[in-house]
Amino acid sequence: MIKIAIVGVGTVGESVANILEKNADLISARAGKELKVIKGAVKDLSKKRNVSIPLTDDIDEVLNDKDIDIVVELMGGVDEPYKVVKKALENGKAVVTANKALLAYHRYDLQKIAGDLPIGYEASVAGGIPIINALKVGLSANKILAIKGIINGTCNYMLTKMINEGIEFDEILKESQELGYAEADPTFDIGGFDAAHKLLILASIAYGIDSKPEDILIEGIEDINSYDIEFAKEFGYSIKLLAIAKKIDENIELRVHPVLIKNNQMISKIDGVMNGISVIGDFVGETLYYGAGAGGDATASAVVSDIVEIVRAGKSSPMLGFKKPFKSENLKLLPTDYIQTKYYLRVTVKDEKGVLAKISKTLGDSNISIDTFLQKQVGDDKAILLFSTHVCYEKEIKKAIKEIEGYDFINQKVSMIRIED
Amino acid sequence: MIKIAIVGVGTVGESVANILEKNADLISARAGKELKVIKGAVKDLSKKRNVSIPLTDDIDEVLNDKDIDIVVELMGGVDEPYKVVKKALENGKAVVTANKALLAYHRYDLQKIAGDLPIGYEASVAGGIPIINALKVGLSANKILAIKGIINGTCNYMLTKMINEGIEFDEILKESQELGYAEADPTFDIGGFDAAHKLLILASIAYGIDSKPEDILIEGIEDINSYDIEFAKEFGYSIKLLAIAKKIDENIELRVHPVLIKNNQMISKIDGVMNGISVIGDFVGETLYYGAGAGGDATASAVVSDIVEIVRAGKSSPMLGFKKPFKSENLKLLPTDYIQTKYYLRVTVKDEKGVLAKISKTLGDSNISIDTFLQKQVGDDKAILLFSTHVCYEKEIKKAIKEIEGYDFINQKVSMIRIED
Repeated sequence: MIKIAIVGVGTVGESVANILEKNADLISARAGKELKVIKGAVKDLSKKRNVSIPLTDDIDEVLNDKDIDIVVELMGGVDEPYKVVKKALENGKAVVTANKALLAYHRYDLQKIAGDLPIGYEASVAGGIPIINALKVGLSANKILAIKGIINGTCNYMLTKMINEGIEFDEILKESQELGYAEADPTFDIGGFDAAHKLLILASIAYGIDSKPEDILIEGIEDINSYDIEFAKEFGYSIKLLAIAKKIDENIELRVHPVLIKNNQMISKIDGVMNGISVIGDFVGETLYYGAGAGGDATASAVVSDIVEIVRAGKSSPMLGFKKPFKSENLKLLPTDYIQTKYYLRVTVKDEKGVLAKISKTLGDSNISIDTFLQKQVGDDKAILLFSTHVCYEKEIKKAIKEIEGYDFINQKVSMIRIED
Repeated sequence: MIKIAIVGVGTVGESVANILEKNADLISARAGKELKVIKGAVKDLSKKRNVSIPLTDDIDEVLNDKDIDIVVELMGGVDEPYKVVKKALENGKAVVTANKALLAYHRYDLQKIAGDLPIGYEASVAGGIPIINALKVGLSANKILAIKGIINGTCNYMLTKMINEGIEFDEILKESQELGYAEADPTFDIGGFDAAHKLLILASIAYGIDSKPEDILIEGIEDINSYDIEFAKEFGYSIKLLAIAKKIDENIELRVHPVLIKNNQMISKIDGVMNGISVIGDFVGETLYYGAGAGGDATASAVVSDIVEIVRAGKSSPMLGFKKPFKSENLKLLPTDYIQTKYYLRVTVKDEKGVLAKISKTLGDSNISIDTFLQKQVGDDKAILLFSTHVCYEKEIKKAIKEIEGYDFINQKVSMIRIED
């Protein structure tokens, strides 16, 4: 029998215990052994939980228990879980974690500490979708040319509602909070940080690249409004928060931001709270993975699949998929300035003569050519100008935006969305 | 260094050799060892091939070569490859195969012969999509409630063209043959047999059920015409060839046939030659996997991923994912008669009085209630009646169809498509 402890028994932990009980026969047939959760560690013993396992508020009691084979870390946070996982590994226990923040900062440390001990983290990215396993095993023959992920359900739910029902950002945020799809403080989700944590994990498996959230471009969906939606619809785009990893020669782009993306792209069809990740490999072409990216049961499904694989397969392949460092290509993170893409700009102006000419000239002077243009009148003296550009460098568009924002006829900041083709 | 032999060096074999050469650095970083194809076995040595590996027409030379660690079987057929794989395993070599026909008939024999030796077969279902691994590892916590797969690119290409461009079956078949999407003898693809082979492999991993192609319901897309397409469009359906596995209590339905499926279902959005598989687990809900289901490079990507995992992970989990037989649920194949679904019928009639009343009565007498109805006039004396029904048993609809076909006013067989909700 394999003995499991859960550290942090919230929604996901309860569901892990529930799955292991409800599907015990099937899971033990697959794993080859009986699996049993024998202990849970929690902060607050007085809180009522839907589990029948013995609980303790002494984490060390779990970590030092020689009977326990696998520690499941579901605490949340970074520093505390790092200590817990480290100690579990040092005590010779396999670890399964759903903690993307922990891995965004400590995945390489933990891989090193683990050595031959397995660490499962399928649940850390896109909940129930087995994307870690797909990248680590299923696509291992390929150079990964690009990853484009819708990996934050909150943002995707909100953007889908904005597009399909024309609801404005503030209203849909309130609704999402009431439905439990968004947190009371929603910054972590709608600011793109949650997606960024997950992207870094995927990029390590795809490219062996070690980056921190602070190193990469992260923008949220807070500034998107109904004019952007209108422009998107007019030109056959969806708006999605994408986590993007791309290999450009020996550089890797890692970035999280809203994009305009053509409606004929498979990933643009992923709506509501669902997650989806498109991966392009040099031989396999595009593959795409779709499913529930959050929720106790879907996340617990991934946690338990890691447990089964640890028990069934024994010694695991290395945590991040590379047996030896991949040095021959010398991959480096591309500085944000050198990102090349198409852009969409929303410029709110006083409706005066010569405004369009001045903006066009500014763009032209920065080597930016305009692809499409729409003008919307707002009241008597205000206009909204909506541009899309051909491909240019990020530093060029940023420079142009700064110049445009300096003009007298502008009294609010220019809004920019990247276009993903 | 790991030494590999390829038996059957066609398009896929060439691509396997090419990937291992072109991505050698990356692959050896992932696998931890250098991988090298040292020999290929072919039937006809005089045929020109795009590989630089030494070739032989003596398969035994490969199978008896003590240097070879992994045999990649890419021959096609059933009996001959069975002998080859069996002998390779008996000689202590790991095996990777892309051969769905072999596995449709011999997967349980081979699992037994292999014992602890790994057999990789990711390429046998849906080409480059890592669906074997997803089912075997990523979803292992779940009871699989249903699998719905578009796993034949030829059929999907043809049906997509019929729907999007209104081209009739015979014409698009000819075009597909010219483009190389359909074989000169297309029966294996358009008759549903290829999809059935793949379905049986998936069902073994999901349910541990051992069935042969002869045991299950297989229908092709040959009878679909423009009236069916018109009906589908009118009521918001796509038409897809689906391979379906479903758990209904302790019964498993396994069937391959065209379906009408609502356009809002994710799997209905998979068009052209692409493949996609939707899997519903009791905890994870729906996950879906999309990508290229055929082609040398995509298939070879899966073959090489198996090789990497064999080298990286060492002793593999059991071939079909079950460490011990899963007996507690006593799952049985559901007899075709007891399938329950909605149906669509196309009935071509002489345009006489009372025809609709007679057909309606026949359906009603078999406990089948009509959901929607369309009538199309064809010339002066012929009409096409298009019905969809509420849920009923397969044996009821079959009985009703037989009765309807007996009427004087019918002079061609009734066409039936199942509706998948």
